[in-house]
Amino acid sequence: MWEQLYEKIDGLYDRMVEDRRYLHQHPELSFHEKETAKYIKNRYDELGIPYKSNIGGYGIVATLEGGKPGKTVALRADFDALPIQEENDVPYKSKVDGVMHACGHDGHTASLLAVAEAALEFKDELPGTLVFLHQPAEEYAPGGAKPMIDEGALEGVDAVFGTHLWASTPLNKIETTKGPFMAGADRFTVTFKGKGGHGALPQQTKDPVVMAGQAIVELQQVVSRRINPLQPAVLSIGKIEGGNAFNVIPDTTSLTGTVRILDKEVQDEIIDEMHKILKGITISFDADYELDYVKGYPPVVNHEKEAEYYLENAEEIPGVVGYEEVDPIMGGEDFAYYLEERPGAFFFTGAQIEGHEYPHHHPKFDFDERALPTAAKALIHGYKKYQEDQ
Amino acid sequence: MWEQLYEKIDGLYDRMVEDRRYLHQHPELSFHEKETAKYIKNRYDELGIPYKSNIGGYGIVATLEGGKPGKTVALRADFDALPIQEENDVPYKSKVDGVMHACGHDGHTASLLAVAEAALEFKDELPGTLVFLHQPAEEYAPGGAKPMIDEGALEGVDAVFGTHLWASTPLNKIETTKGPFMAGADRFTVTFKGKGGHGALPQQTKDPVVMAGQAIVELQQVVSRRINPLQPAVLSIGKIEGGNAFNVIPDTTSLTGTVRILDKEVQDEIIDEMHKILKGITISFDADYELDYVKGYPPVVNHEKEAEYYLENAEEIPGVVGYEEVDPIMGGEDFAYYLEERPGAFFFTGAQIEGHEYPHHHPKFDFDERALPTAAKALIHGYKKYQEDQ
Amino acid sequence: MWEQLYEKIDGLYDRMVEDRRYLHQHPELSFHEKETAKYIKNRYDELGIPYKSNIGGYGIVATLEGGKPGKTVALRADFDALPIQEENDVPYKSKVDGVMHACGHDGHTASLLAVAEAALEFKDELPGTLVFLHQPAEEYAPGGAKPMIDEGALEGVDAVFGTHLWASTPLNKIETTKGPFMAGADRFTVTFKGKGGHGALPQQTKDPVVMAGQAIVELQQVVSRRINPLQPAVLSIGKIEGGNAFNVIPDTTSLTGTVRILDKEVQDEIIDEMHKILKGITISFDADYELDYVKGYPPVVNHEKEAEYYLENAEEIPGVVGYEEVDPIMGGEDFAYYLEERPGAFFFTGAQIEGHEYPHHHPKFDFDERALPTAAKALIHGYKKYQEDQ
Amino acid sequence: MWEQLYEKIDGLYDRMVEDRRYLHQHPELSFHEKETAKYIKNRYDELGIPYKSNIGGYGIVATLEGGKPGKTVALRADFDALPIQEENDVPYKSKVDGVMHACGHDGHTASLLAVAEAALEFKDELPGTLVFLHQPAEEYAPGGAKPMIDEGALEGVDAVFGTHLWASTPLNKIETTKGPFMAGADRFTVTFKGKGGHGALPQQTKDPVVMAGQAIVELQQVVSRRINPLQPAVLSIGKIEGGNAFNVIPDTTSLTGTVRILDKEVQDEIIDEMHKILKGITISFDADYELDYVKGYPPVVNHEKEAEYYLENAEEIPGVVGYEEVDPIMGGEDFAYYLEERPGAFFFTGAQIEGHEYPHHHPKFDFDERALPTAAKALIHGYKKYQEDQ
Repeated sequence: MWEQLYEKIDGLYDRMVEDRRYLHQHPELSFHEKETAKYIKNRYDELGIPYKSNIGGYGIVATLEGGKPGKTVALRADFDALPIQEENDVPYKSKVDGVMHACGHDGHTASLLAVAEAALEFKDELPGTLVFLHQPAEEYAPGGAKPMIDEGALEGVDAVFGTHLWASTPLNKIETTKGPFMAGADRFTVTFKGKGGHGALPQQTKDPVVMAGQAIVELQQVVSRRINPLQPAVLSIGKIEGGNAFNVIPDTTSLTGTVRILDKEVQDEIIDEMHKILKGITISFDADYELDYVKGYPPVVNHEKEAEYYLENAEEIPGVVGYEEVDPIMGGEDFAYYLEERPGAFFFTGAQIEGHEYPHHHPKFDFDERALPTAAKALIHGYKKYQEDQ
Repeated sequence: MWEQLYEKIDGLYDRMVEDRRYLHQHPELSFHEKETAKYIKNRYDELGIPYKSNIGGYGIVATLEGGKPGKTVALRADFDALPIQEENDVPYKSKVDGVMHACGHDGHTASLLAVAEAALEFKDELPGTLVFLHQPAEEYAPGGAKPMIDEGALEGVDAVFGTHLWASTPLNKIETTKGPFMAGADRFTVTFKGKGGHGALPQQTKDPVVMAGQAIVELQQVVSRRINPLQPAVLSIGKIEGGNAFNVIPDTTSLTGTVRILDKEVQDEIIDEMHKILKGITISFDADYELDYVKGYPPVVNHEKEAEYYLENAEEIPGVVGYEEVDPIMGGEDFAYYLEERPGAFFFTGAQIEGHEYPHHHPKFDFDERALPTAAKALIHGYKKYQEDQ
Repeated sequence: MWEQLYEKIDGLYDRMVEDRRYLHQHPELSFHEKETAKYIKNRYDELGIPYKSNIGGYGIVATLEGGKPGKTVALRADFDALPIQEENDVPYKSKVDGVMHACGHDGHTASLLAVAEAALEFKDELPGTLVFLHQPAEEYAPGGAKPMIDEGALEGVDAVFGTHLWASTPLNKIETTKGPFMAGADRFTVTFKGKGGHGALPQQTKDPVVMAGQAIVELQQVVSRRINPLQPAVLSIGKIEGGNAFNVIPDTTSLTGTVRILDKEVQDEIIDEMHKILKGITISFDADYELDYVKGYPPVVNHEKEAEYYLENAEEIPGVVGYEEVDPIMGGEDFAYYLEERPGAFFFTGAQIEGHEYPHHHPKFDFDERALPTAAKALIHGYKKYQEDQ
Repeated sequence: MWEQLYEKIDGLYDRMVEDRRYLHQHPELSFHEKETAKYIKNRYDELGIPYKSNIGGYGIVATLEGGKPGKTVALRADFDALPIQEENDVPYKSKVDGVMHACGHDGHTASLLAVAEAALEFKDELPGTLVFLHQPAEEYAPGGAKPMIDEGALEGVDAVFGTHLWASTPLNKIETTKGPFMAGADRFTVTFKGKGGHGALPQQTKDPVVMAGQAIVELQQVVSRRINPLQPAVLSIGKIEGGNAFNVIPDTTSLTGTVRILDKEVQDEIIDEMHKILKGITISFDADYELDYVKGYPPVVNHEKEAEYYLENAEEIPGVVGYEEVDPIMGGEDFAYYLEERPGAFFFTGAQIEGHEYPHHHPKFDFDERALPTAAKALIHGYKKYQEDQ
């Protein structure tokens, strides 16, 4: 049966591409994915698979009970997009100005829909129950996973698996690791409150532009000098903003960014050191600042046994061309919350396009669609191995 | 006659306040002052004073020939506003979101309209000709003065005078200086062209946010170390911009600012040193930059004799409570162009509100309206003294 | 026999303290430890244990053949001091201005001499051979270990053990780890070649003081943004130097510092990024720089089985009050070279003084002398376990 | 008589060169010019001109009464050297390691000695009295002028003149200005008090090297943004110092520098802003600083009438090839104190060597010795004009 199921997935390739491209052309920002959710619900309606919607926002939980006894295994796909202007010249280019699926969530959704469609055909022979978690708002803390769990998405679920199409990993190669796999991801905004005035009279102002410049430069010390060098950490600023006239020094400026860590212990130290640096800068200007620091997703920590399904056992998945236990990566994922509640694993499915290699979140990001069936089969593989293990 | 004319001005106080407040509530950005120009033209239509419009953009040149022989003297008022959100809580607060008369040009216009209305009454006794220059776009280089001159605004004009209501000068005090009075004002935008990517993987990017931070900090050296310390200069950045997601390092960032100088000789040195600093920064990231540097207004250099009207002779102006020869100030003014073409002077009319002292271009900027008749009389005074001198 | 040997060590406590304090009062800088070597040789002469001297500089290799068959095990102690002015007020304070045993090498030597004296008494019962490696110049790359090895210090040796008295670890606690335990340690000097001149005319100079300031600030990016955040790394500057008059801008300044890494792969990337940053800075001044980068000791990588002697088996050592497998630390050690050639392990012996806790290399550094016998016994323990394992 | 006196000066050319070269080879630092003073006294002893010595340190005041009635005019030459290692390859190169006449004081002394020798020959015909002020310690505040004045050097003196050989002014050209001619010159040392430690464990330290780097960068704001841009000011750091091992983060670092201003009013503002910046930096590290700020010489403000001798009347001096009223320069001079007490003027005598143009205080500084007689004649000219004016 499992082989037929895998073959069925391959047969759904065109369907996956169609779903993915439609979603790619109609991206929606985190917490605003109303139409995307409607698209997914339509697909489950067509299949006749029952689901609950508006779980933790626009979340959807569909359920397929198998005909055989077994455990309940949830598979998850996220479906939100990013505030990025697409720069790819492709037929399926985003139709929404300034919004883009630049992280592959369109593909995750297409793969999981294919799993549902394929599994439906083998319903009677399937052990236990399959739960399809279609999750909104992965890109923006507090994210969509937490509220879905809070509203019961994991009730009755025994284990959970998820994948990320990964554009810098060779096509159809699986990568994951036991233990910490992805970083904790926080979000912050610093606002400098100076005193504006005429650009020609700097001595009468408390210039928040200069404060921002100093902060960008000095915040580097947090990672380079002020925490244990053995603790991997990143502090990046993604957005700077202030002023709207060339000759008017503004009253305020702001910096918005992210902090990544692999161990929660270092988090409060980082916040403390940020405060010290910002305090020092603003004191030197007789000015003030506000640090709005939102503790985000915890690190994604894979469960050992479930992670092994994608390491030692990865070769059992048809289409997979290799696997590797890799170093943890500094990107964050709210899949972390599922793994705090249930056993399971998160893994990458390689989707690199040779000659068009742009990082995730880049305006030219894209992935090889031939990874879609592999991702789908690898999710089924988690479900299969977990049943066998019981 | 002159005394009666001055008294007439005082009698137009309510009219000036009304004009000023209407304009304050309906501010328009530089080069977009269509409705403001219409308002001014209506006033001249009411008075029956002939004018030419659309001179160098929305500029208006009205002409009042006196009944006595004499010289032709132009008086100038500018009428554009700034991209600032007003924070004053006053009945005449700006009705346009994000646009504000934060530099007093509404008052300049009201005063000059009162001069026209008052002078009209004494037309037959007036020597020579009065020209009223209502100028758009003073706040944004290349400005409105240059195109007005290019389209003939100074044809037949012998001398030119102008004033700026000045919020940090005590009410009705006159300030000016012989020679350089206001600075040359340039505008620039630096764009850093890095390579964006995921905020968690800084090593894969060429981070333009960090380049911007370094540039803000290092460009201070232009003034502090890289030019002759005897050459007064200011380099201020009024606007920083880049990125739109906390966790995405953008491809580009930009800094927009102004350079002020009192002597054109130092201008090219400053541009050279900016290039050296920006080149150094971007080389250290294997990245690129673009510096769009717009040489702006030249310094305002008062003519000696005409400036004296507002120094030694200032006490002849009714309502003036003092005068002072002050240091040059670093603010720029496109009145500079008129003084490159014709003799004349530019001066400040004090308009400070005690207890509400905010610099020009500040969201809480305001001025004491009792300065409006003084500004009007001081403009007439320039015209009067110039006639007497011939 | 082993128990008696351990007891003998305890009985030599006063001797160890005497040796340690004498050496502490007479510290010598790396590569200049002539008198220290003489002191050690005198002690071996007194004991009648044969040795070779001037091995790789002032190195000494003493050999004690046991009466029983077995393997040859080397134990190592380093004996150089640091260019630091001692600030402790103790009877055994350094008598040499600006030179201090601020890292505990005086204690290492005292412990190893006690091992030799004690072992001599049980010579006939000892298995195999004990080799005592007294090594100079650990503090300054290229160090003393490499030349000692090159001149044959490990000939015939089967395994090697060494310890570091550690002032931030509780007294008599053992700490080590399997695999990478201590960092690779490089040394660099950056020289900025500007153009000096009068302090009042900065625009005529290319100011190397400002270059140095920028470099200190910008080199933070190497660790914070320019390498893989999962690769622990440190870049610290220990010495800044330039100029000798308050009003003369010098021609040159220099920065001297260290880079620490746990994986050699990141080393060349760090050097590349340093060059990029330094190039950018000097280009912005039309100036030059020189980077003298000395690749130093490789990381200390413990062999798994030998490290276990100090983890699972640490409790067998009398006097040891606990043990822990700790995170690697960023300090470097040329013990790394021995472990590249032979199996073995390096470990810390806790020597914290409660209430007087200063880091290694601090002018107030000191350690609890009651750690000396524990260090000695722990070295014997390595020798013992290695024999038993064969 | 005056023409003969000028010719006599020219005849003393070899003598001046000999004196200058001897002094150049035997330079002494400020406040330590014992042997230099002895040399000067010997020369006056030879001439038989009476003098007082040890006036305000090693100062010498020689007096030559003329045979005719007139005013008493003082001429001043300074005689200290700088802590600079000479890099010129000349026969008269400094014989003292690290000390150099890199500012021309050797020449000033030689010129003034020639004035004395020449004037002696025409003693009976000279009007009034000539006073020769040989002053120590000009290079290092509080300087030698103040104590010389305090000990009576200007008693009975009516006017005072002095010159500086100037290496960037064409040979034998005179430059000066009416009013402010040279800057006020202050000296400061900032000491950062952090917490040292091992270079591999930055998170356990409060790194004073990074504090110093930030301070060098941020102190630029004092001049660029924090004072009135119309107030010329310079803040330069001439010396950085800290640490003495590559792998030991030191407890302290220090920066030593100078502040130059043309108006005393801005001095306290600068000190305040320095404190704000330093406070901000150290707060961000939980560390401390000390700012030792020594207010130095006031600005050199020439008296109008006396300055004119070297402008309109400069052509009367034989050998002078031109003159110019120049902008004030930012270098300081304790000649300022004489001009606070008496009328007089200070001027530059051009001494540029074409093709070997190094700024004052540079290790390759040198001047054209053919300027020596011109400087001497120009000093006499001041004395002559002052007598004629009475």
